[in-house]
Amino acid sequence: MLIVHVSVQVKEDRVAPFIEATKKNATASRGEPGIARFDVVQQLDEPTRFVLVEVYRTAEDAAKHKETAHYAAWRDAVADMMAAPRSSKKFAAVTPDATGWDSP
Amino acid sequence: MLIVHVSVQVKEDRVAPFIEATKKNATASRGEPGIARFDVVQQLDEPTRFVLVEVYRTAEDAAKHKETAHYAAWRDAVADMMAAPRSSKKFAAVTPDATGWDSP
Repeated sequence: MLIVHVSVQVKEDRVAPFIEATKKNATASRGEPGIARFDVVQQLDEPTRFVLVEVYRTAEDAAKHKETAHYAAWRDAVADMMAAPRSSKKFAAVTPDATGWDSP
Repeated sequence: MLIVHVSVQVKEDRVAPFIEATKKNATASRGEPGIARFDVVQQLDEPTRFVLVEVYRTAEDAAKHKETAHYAAWRDAVADMMAAPRSSKKFAAVTPDATGWDSP
């Protein structure tokens, strides 16, 4: 598995449209066979900060995601909503093992 | 849901025992009814850095976790393995909704 944590800071007045666009992208992304999970969380003490937790089966699946129409639509929709450039970190799974990452 | 990301930096020569102790804690934690997920990931470009991604149903469930024997055993086992103090951030779920967080 390849796990990517994307950290996002959104402009204060764009939180609601960011959530709307990002939910749409998450739902479509979960339909990709190479994606086991696509979660979005909002920081409690700084609600303009979000993390997208993306769990890909392989590195190729992460590349394929960036070629989808829903990713392009999200990227364009949120471009003006960012308060700062996005940053991301890549991780390997320690636990669970490969069978434990799929959403129910 | 209450999602907690715990960032950990481990001493270079303690990565293997940290993984062993943390897997044991993750497995036991998943048995708590208040825990939907307990994932551990290792940063690809800095393998001494880990994130524990803990998904609790409620804030009380997070407090209860800290009262368990497996948490105490983990905390004591890893105390000498840390290269820096742990830090954590708390998040609310944006997506999936409450039914989508359980592990399979």
